[in-house]
Amino acid sequence: MPVPPSERLERTASAAARARLDTVLVTPSADLVYLTGYDPPPLERLTCLAVRPGRPAILLVPELERPLAESTVKAPVEVVPWTETEDPFDLIRRIVGKGRRVACSDRMWAMHVLRIQRALPHASFLAASRILGPLRAIKDPEEVDRLARAARYADEAFGRVTRSRLESVTERDVAGRLTELLLELGNEQVTFTIVGSGPNAASPHHRPGDRTIQARDPVVMDFGGRAAGYCSDITRTVAIREATVELREVHDIVREAQERAFGAARPGVPAQDVDRAAREVIEQAGYGDRFIHRTGHGIGLEEHEDPYLVEGNETLLQPGMCFSIEPGIYLPGRLGVRIEDIVAVTEEGARRLNRASRDLEIVP
Amino acid sequence: MPVPPSERLERTASAAARARLDTVLVTPSADLVYLTGYDPPPLERLTCLAVRPGRPAILLVPELERPLAESTVKAPVEVVPWTETEDPFDLIRRIVGKGRRVACSDRMWAMHVLRIQRALPHASFLAASRILGPLRAIKDPEEVDRLARAARYADEAFGRVTRSRLESVTERDVAGRLTELLLELGNEQVTFTIVGSGPNAASPHHRPGDRTIQARDPVVMDFGGRAAGYCSDITRTVAIREATVELREVHDIVREAQERAFGAARPGVPAQDVDRAAREVIEQAGYGDRFIHRTGHGIGLEEHEDPYLVEGNETLLQPGMCFSIEPGIYLPGRLGVRIEDIVAVTEEGARRLNRASRDLEIVP
Repeated sequence: MPVPPSERLERTASAAARARLDTVLVTPSADLVYLTGYDPPPLERLTCLAVRPGRPAILLVPELERPLAESTVKAPVEVVPWTETEDPFDLIRRIVGKGRRVACSDRMWAMHVLRIQRALPHASFLAASRILGPLRAIKDPEEVDRLARAARYADEAFGRVTRSRLESVTERDVAGRLTELLLELGNEQVTFTIVGSGPNAASPHHRPGDRTIQARDPVVMDFGGRAAGYCSDITRTVAIREATVELREVHDIVREAQERAFGAARPGVPAQDVDRAAREVIEQAGYGDRFIHRTGHGIGLEEHEDPYLVEGNETLLQPGMCFSIEPGIYLPGRLGVRIEDIVAVTEEGARRLNRASRDLEIVP
Repeated sequence: MPVPPSERLERTASAAARARLDTVLVTPSADLVYLTGYDPPPLERLTCLAVRPGRPAILLVPELERPLAESTVKAPVEVVPWTETEDPFDLIRRIVGKGRRVACSDRMWAMHVLRIQRALPHASFLAASRILGPLRAIKDPEEVDRLARAARYADEAFGRVTRSRLESVTERDVAGRLTELLLELGNEQVTFTIVGSGPNAASPHHRPGDRTIQARDPVVMDFGGRAAGYCSDITRTVAIREATVELREVHDIVREAQERAFGAARPGVPAQDVDRAAREVIEQAGYGDRFIHRTGHGIGLEEHEDPYLVEGNETLLQPGMCFSIEPGIYLPGRLGVRIEDIVAVTEEGARRLNRASRDLEIVP
């Protein structure tokens, strides 16, 4: 852990105090890893960290996971086990005490949220991302290094997969190759592999299927893994054997949009301005209604986290924020193009963590 | 899908009507797969199925996932897309309408639950498991077949791993072998691999680490995968080279407890009675306080689902219910033993889906 977990816990407690929160409840998730280094499987049995301004942090764990918790938690928290026939929500009630404002981690399961609400009928509930989002959004240098390493693995996987023949291969097989490459290169996990060829390129979250890739196809490859806990996420669109005129034209526009958005990313700029910079290029080219998603999302322990680069997000960018810039144009039934890099905001501007070429690559 | 999704949707709507629920909201999860065959990644963008008694089901999806939804949803639902700058919770408010009793799927994220609650300030919220749990708990023959196939892969992985030498190998490497075997045998995913050796065997959810397995060690191996959507979960405890007297003794007790619990599983018996049957054996042997978890959990599209075999659960077992029976004894610092099979309740009793021997195996 780059910043010691104790400091992260303290910052969280301070932010909670400023937000007049009595308790922040965190179940297994990236939030829990961020605060304690503890990463148990999310299950129906309640595991829950309680951060309380001015009082010690408590980690409630099922009795059978007590040895796991005691041996792997890296933060100054008191581990409190509960047994299978006890009611952990009764313990939550006692831990929260008279508190009236309680935050729940964003990914806490409804089955737990609803039980906690029933145990605390007079409390109001808020999303913990209001304090944990901004804290996690700003990466320290060690975290940026890990994101950069993960990005290099993604670049390398893209490079290797496009040096092999893709024509006559199914999307599913290309996704399989990407998975193998990502693991081989040092990722501990592959988080997703989108391979959309031909008309499937127009479906941004296409699930790779049995379609065989053909000459003149555009192929959108969007994939990521996790290395040393931090995520990668890259998209490139290639052409098989040769690119149609329309594909070249659309690719040029998307590349320009990606470039302009990157140019707009610097400290003090509202997140939505990066989205606007990309959107302006695409709108001016007449494809505004075919850019059907936001320009990007923060990345770190999770694939998607704060800050989101979307109209309406006035969060000011700060050094250490890391996010994707990934404009796209989708023409249903014909083609789709998306180009995505992860970038880190620096003191002066931003730097790209991905280095793979953004030119339209022609693959055999 | 064995039972057509349309029938599952109808059953859910009927159960909702009986429970006086106005709307059942289901975000990406096994519940959504069960009802629609649709399995998108759970993300911060809201994807939500609304099942409403007497009215058509609606699936709200982010605009960019509309092509994915339209091509993969297998149930009669109306797909309604929302764009990045729209507020999907406003759409939820309109879909629920005047409804006052709303159920949320168990794994819905807090960030969505809290926004839905804010959009529907006069509604009360319940966990959807109250209706989906019992529906999903009873497997049709096709589902039991899939669980049986997954169980055979697990048996075979256990058989192969114990035919190799485990002495002088690290826990992590054994877990790696199990992962490879499970994938090789036909699982599409490995869900977890617990390998706890020596004193680590006393930690039920031990995470495999750098410890090198030694002669006379007990080794608890508890692992599972997913094949054709359905989960496996098996535990066996082996001894390396030779078993100590204490390990033999404890293993005999756990095996007897597992046997008795299996004998207790038949239609009409309360779930807690299966737990009691196992617990009685262990208590009589003087290890009652070292059996620190329930006896089992349902299994299907998820590793853990209804019914739970735990004191206090009076649900009556029915043919088609499938669950683990996995008593254990844990002696901190010394050893641990757990034996687990998946069983399916039949018309007359129950049958084991796992067939690996439950004898204490001695591994070189």
